[in-house]
Amino acid sequence: MEDSAPRARRSMFACLVGASQLLGLASVVLTGVWMGHYRGGFAWDGSAREFNLHPLCMVLGLVFLQGDAILVYRVFRNEAKRNVKMLHGIIHLLALIISIIGVVAVFDFHRAAKIPDMYSLHSWCGIITMVLFCIQWVMGLSFFLFPAASSWLRASYLPIHVFCGLALLVLAIGTSLLGITEKLLFSIMPTYSAFAPEGVLANVLGILLVCFGLLLGYLITREEYRRPPNPEEESLSVHFKTLTEGGSPTTP
Amino acid sequence: MEDSAPRARRSMFACLVGASQLLGLASVVLTGVWMGHYRGGFAWDGSAREFNLHPLCMVLGLVFLQGDAILVYRVFRNEAKRNVKMLHGIIHLLALIISIIGVVAVFDFHRAAKIPDMYSLHSWCGIITMVLFCIQWVMGLSFFLFPAASSWLRASYLPIHVFCGLALLVLAIGTSLLGITEKLLFSIMPTYSAFAPEGVLANVLGILLVCFGLLLGYLITREEYRRPPNPEEESLSVHFKTLTEGGSPTTP
Repeated sequence: MEDSAPRARRSMFACLVGASQLLGLASVVLTGVWMGHYRGGFAWDGSAREFNLHPLCMVLGLVFLQGDAILVYRVFRNEAKRNVKMLHGIIHLLALIISIIGVVAVFDFHRAAKIPDMYSLHSWCGIITMVLFCIQWVMGLSFFLFPAASSWLRASYLPIHVFCGLALLVLAIGTSLLGITEKLLFSIMPTYSAFAPEGVLANVLGILLVCFGLLLGYLITREEYRRPPNPEEESLSVHFKTLTEGGSPTTP
Repeated sequence: MEDSAPRARRSMFACLVGASQLLGLASVVLTGVWMGHYRGGFAWDGSAREFNLHPLCMVLGLVFLQGDAILVYRVFRNEAKRNVKMLHGIIHLLALIISIIGVVAVFDFHRAAKIPDMYSLHSWCGIITMVLFCIQWVMGLSFFLFPAASSWLRASYLPIHVFCGLALLVLAIGTSLLGITEKLLFSIMPTYSAFAPEGVLANVLGILLVCFGLLLGYLITREEYRRPPNPEEESLSVHFKTLTEGGSPTTP
């Protein structure tokens, strides 16, 4: 007979993961509704409708997918580590591609509309996040998916990779909130203070993004949801030579 | 003779703490310069100069002091836990008082200028952060400074308190960035895109706040900077009855 404490813990974990997915999906849908219903929909023609792809791609790629790419280490913590790593890398690649489309969309729109680039705090935070995200992806790939780095280097880099991953998710969410505020003040400044429906919808989107980040942060940092140590897997060197020499890195 | 690894670790820790203090102080100074030089200075008369106290108080109280209140657990990790707890609570109280002055300043200014309250994403995030900060302070006080809660409750609450503390710091920084963006778009929208010095200064302030948050997040979550276990202190029940019955909570 199973002990009730681990069962309750598993149920709580499942509820929290479910809630995080609802929050993430609701954020993507709300961004789509905001841009689709209030801002004229989507196109790739240099118009404001091309700009509208920017928030949608960033929330989908850099927030929702990046968050889920991190979460796979908790959701599949009892699966073979190599498979989970592959999934982590693939979802991150998808997030990277979608984010790059989002960034190209806004630069393309700016060029067509002769709007200067890179002057706002949103753009500064955004470009820093994108550059660090690319570096993190390439570093992760070369350290953990291809056995190029020494086991000592991997063990030293792992906690930094984990910290940077969560920091990048937080940066992405913070940058999204700045983007929401910028867009609202550019578009509906006179009616925003009268609680115009578009403003309220965008504010709710911001709060959903904050809740998604908080819930993911909790799930990722909580000790009891970490991958349990698996000496057999480690001795089989499933994650290559990381754990076979010297250090005993923290499970990501 | 001392081992060189712990010495190098201590030097790195000291450098990172020093850098965090420079970043935090620079943020407070830059906010003061922005409001003092570009926005007309400070007063308590319902004018825009009263509003100017709002960013200064929030960056000083809710970002810099809140960050430092958390950091004392790492900086004084070899001091008696009870003293560190007291310091943690006192700095938080100071942060709370200064933040409340900041919040009163903006509501007072809005009332005098007949500007609606609580419509923007910045205000929504800000009020959520302030309410949660008050709850966190009261909960921390009753759980850890006064021995009212059972040891089981304390042990269960400790990781949540630690997580919420860091989450609140991140929320405070995110809300500050939203405030910077709002203020710039309200004040200098026509010249912001031409890289007006005020806009660049405020953007730099935003980036400094992000760096302060990242550095503090790193210092707080890094395993090697945690308080080392001290069985003697624990058996003496210096932090009251937390560790004398049942659970063995994580060191905050």
